[in-house]
Amino acid sequence: MKAIVLLSGGLDSTTTLAVAIDRGFEILPLHLNYRHRAQKKELEAFDAILNHYGIERRLVVELPFFSRFEKRGLVNPELDLSVESYNDSRLSYLPFRNGVMLAIATAIAEEEEAGAIFAGVMEEDSSGYPDCREKFIQNFQQTINSGTKKGDITLMTPIIHLKKSEVVLLGNKLGVPFHLTWSCYGGDERPCGRCASCLLRRSAFEKAGVKDPLT
Amino acid sequence: MKAIVLLSGGLDSTTTLAVAIDRGFEILPLHLNYRHRAQKKELEAFDAILNHYGIERRLVVELPFFSRFEKRGLVNPELDLSVESYNDSRLSYLPFRNGVMLAIATAIAEEEEAGAIFAGVMEEDSSGYPDCREKFIQNFQQTINSGTKKGDITLMTPIIHLKKSEVVLLGNKLGVPFHLTWSCYGGDERPCGRCASCLLRRSAFEKAGVKDPLT
Repeated sequence: MKAIVLLSGGLDSTTTLAVAIDRGFEILPLHLNYRHRAQKKELEAFDAILNHYGIERRLVVELPFFSRFEKRGLVNPELDLSVESYNDSRLSYLPFRNGVMLAIATAIAEEEEAGAIFAGVMEEDSSGYPDCREKFIQNFQQTINSGTKKGDITLMTPIIHLKKSEVVLLGNKLGVPFHLTWSCYGGDERPCGRCASCLLRRSAFEKAGVKDPLT
Repeated sequence: MKAIVLLSGGLDSTTTLAVAIDRGFEILPLHLNYRHRAQKKELEAFDAILNHYGIERRLVVELPFFSRFEKRGLVNPELDLSVESYNDSRLSYLPFRNGVMLAIATAIAEEEEAGAIFAGVMEEDSSGYPDCREKFIQNFQQTINSGTKKGDITLMTPIIHLKKSEVVLLGNKLGVPFHLTWSCYGGDERPCGRCASCLLRRSAFEKAGVKDPLT
């Protein structure tokens, strides 16, 4: 069965991709370019990961409108993304980003007659965004069921209840090429080490007892 | 209260805009440009209608990915959109288009702290697309409730159960500038008169006993 896999190029989505491959799906990877600071690094990661797995067909969708959200650090390089500022103002939150991504994935899934959409959202042990909750995923599934002709597309979120350290362990077991992934919210040549995503990644590898090849 | 109003520039969305104005909302109109054949004419209509109402702030979001759906007549000018071909292959259907539009509207509504989103979808007396059904709208409302921080954005679909002729009557009553609207799926200087949208419009004006200023 064909599956759309949302692949940012980070730890979570790449592990989700590995799960989809492990389960035998025909993979159609989808990357959303929303003019975020990390867009160049993420796209490099997306391509390198798919080269690693020998997956040739790739979808990159341009979604420039999020870059208008100027108070959001993910898309505005003028803002500080270090954890101190991040905790204050939730600079890294982009309203309904996963809703928009899943909607586009659904449109493509229906057009391509794919039976599944894989998304690497995590409810717990993450940043607590509303559009990562299982309740949101369940509601989106209902929306897909009623809003598509056949209603036969299943949302798959295999890591939604894992802790980040468990994602590292799962990825390790499945042979995920961690060295090719990109987690940092910033777009510098090397991970900043100060944003929430860098800190969560570091902590997850430490707890899992796995060496992060990027550090 | 601020409301995002999805405004293509057609009869249904313009009447929906008129309802939102009539109910006293602060209007933030949103147009999605998905590289459809009628994009130029729709954008002209969008601007003319908002000039008519004296609404200055306007959002136009570029959404180029739908144009890859080459078997869809709405975005592929090589295909015939006359009713005969349309009835055969549903050329005018774009999978989950309203899902994508509502998701983007939701992201913008949350960012702008708008309390409502108006959409001119119609379940009956239309083309029977799944993402025009009330069930879909109800499910999308649940998705908004669980997928946004405050869960306080209400989807408003005031014409969902009207017949198209009733939309004409309602628009007529509210003073909708029908002469500025654009319904044709094609992008020629004048409406083609042969596509499903042109035929539905003609029939609706006839049933309502109102003269369509475009014909």
